[in-house]
Amino acid sequence: MTNWIRFTHDDQTKIGQLDDGTVQCYQGDMFGTNESTGETLRLEEIEPGYPCEPRNFLGLWNNFYSRAEKEGWDVPPEPLYFSKLASSYSPPGKKIVRPVDYDGPVYFEAELGIVIGKTCKQITEQQSAEHIFGYTCVNDVTALEVLGRDKSFPQWVRSKSYDSFCPFGPVINTDVDLDSLIIRAVLDGETRQEYRVSDMVFTPHRLVSILSHYMTLLPGDVIACGTASGSGPMQDGQVIDIEIDGIGKLTSTMQG
Amino acid sequence: MTNWIRFTHDDQTKIGQLDDGTVQCYQGDMFGTNESTGETLRLEEIEPGYPCEPRNFLGLWNNFYSRAEKEGWDVPPEPLYFSKLASSYSPPGKKIVRPVDYDGPVYFEAELGIVIGKTCKQITEQQSAEHIFGYTCVNDVTALEVLGRDKSFPQWVRSKSYDSFCPFGPVINTDVDLDSLIIRAVLDGETRQEYRVSDMVFTPHRLVSILSHYMTLLPGDVIACGTASGSGPMQDGQVIDIEIDGIGKLTSTMQG
Repeated sequence: MTNWIRFTHDDQTKIGQLDDGTVQCYQGDMFGTNESTGETLRLEEIEPGYPCEPRNFLGLWNNFYSRAEKEGWDVPPEPLYFSKLASSYSPPGKKIVRPVDYDGPVYFEAELGIVIGKTCKQITEQQSAEHIFGYTCVNDVTALEVLGRDKSFPQWVRSKSYDSFCPFGPVINTDVDLDSLIIRAVLDGETRQEYRVSDMVFTPHRLVSILSHYMTLLPGDVIACGTASGSGPMQDGQVIDIEIDGIGKLTSTMQG
Repeated sequence: MTNWIRFTHDDQTKIGQLDDGTVQCYQGDMFGTNESTGETLRLEEIEPGYPCEPRNFLGLWNNFYSRAEKEGWDVPPEPLYFSKLASSYSPPGKKIVRPVDYDGPVYFEAELGIVIGKTCKQITEQQSAEHIFGYTCVNDVTALEVLGRDKSFPQWVRSKSYDSFCPFGPVINTDVDLDSLIIRAVLDGETRQEYRVSDMVFTPHRLVSILSHYMTLLPGDVIACGTASGSGPMQDGQVIDIEIDGIGKLTSTMQG
C-alpha cells in the first residue's frame, strides 16, 4: 500500500510516500518517473498540500441509488457532472471560508476522489484499473442557496468553486479495495454521512471509461464521485472530517 | 499595441510579440518578468498554440441585452457562468472534432475572451483595467443536444468541454479599445454573428470585478464574455473564423 503525499518543507514543494507517520521523500513526477531521495521526515515536520494539481476536476451529481430514491430523482442514464475550479483547491487542515456577501448555508459533502495516473482517451472499463493512479478524500463544499438562486441557470460551478471550497487529500492511496471502502463525513465528532462505493450508479472504473469518451482525462485529474445522503450545513467554528478507512482523514474548519 | 503570442518553434514552446507578420521572441513570464531574446521569426516559421494556460476558464451565459430580448430571457442580476475544461483547449488552425457517439449539432459561438494579468481578489471595477492583461478571440464550441438532453441537469460543462471545443487565440492584445470592438463569426466566408461589447449586460471591467468577489482570478485565466445572437451549427468541412478587428482572427475547421 502506497500513500503519496505532496507537502511543503524548507519552503520547497516536495512529494513523498507516507507510512506510519514517516514521509520518505521522492523526486520526479508522481505520475511518471520518480525515485527516492533518501530523505526521511516526520509528519510533524511537513505542511501537507493538496496531493496533486488537477487540470480537470469533475464532480458527479446524482450518482447514488439510495440518494436518488430518497430524493425522488430518476437514476441517470449517463454520468452528470459539473467542475470545480482550480482557484477552489485547498489543502488539508485549512479553513473553509464563507464567501463575502453570502449568508446562506455552506454544505459539506463527503466524496471519494479518483486520481488519474495515465492519459485516458476512449478506454474500456477493463483498462480503467491501469489508468487510475489511486484514490483520495474530497469535501465537495457547496454554497447551496447560490446553486438554486437563479431559476433560469443552476449555478453549479460558482456554488462549488468559491475559494477554499475544494479541500482534497491528504494522500493518494494507490492500492485500494473499492468494495470494502466506507466514506464518512464527521461533523464535530458526529458521523453525518456513511456510505459504500457499491451504492454508486457509476462505479469508479465504469465512470473513468465513460468520461474518457467525453474528454481526455490527464494525469493528476480528479473525479469526485458524488455524495450519498446526509450532507448538511456547517456552522462557524465546526470541524468537518472526510474519512475513508484505508485512505485517510481530510480535516477542515468552517470559518465565518 | 502589443500582441502576445505563444508558439512552437524548433520543438520548443516560446512566447513572443507579433507585429506585422514578424515575431519578436521573449523569455520569461508573459504575465510577469520577461525580456526580448533578440530572436526574430516570421509567422510562417512558427506553429501558434493557444496563447496561455488558463487554470480557470469561465464562459458566460445570457450576457447580451439583444439576445435576452430575442430569446425571451430575463436579464440576469448576476453573471451566470459555466467552465470550459483544460482538456478542451485548442490552438488556432486546428480541427474541431465531432465527439464519438454524437450525431447532433455542434455550434460555434464567437466570443471576446478577457485574459487576466494579475491576481484578482475582491477588486473594484476601477481596479479591473490594471488587472486585465488583454483580450483574445474565443470559439465557445457546444454540443447543443447534449446540453439539454437530461431534463434534471443541464450539462453545461460536458457539452462545452469535449476535446477541441475551446479554440482560443491566436494572440492576446494588451491595448484594446473595448467600445469600438466588433466581434464576428464568419462561417465559410459568410458573416453569421456581428455584435458590439456595448450590448453586454456585464461589460469586461464590471465582470472581472464581480467575479473576483466569487473567486480568485489568476494570471492567465480566461473569461469568455458570452455570445449574442446568430450562433449556429457547423457542417463537416466548414471553416469557422472568429474575428475581432484589432485582436485577430481565430480559424478552425469542423471535422466529421
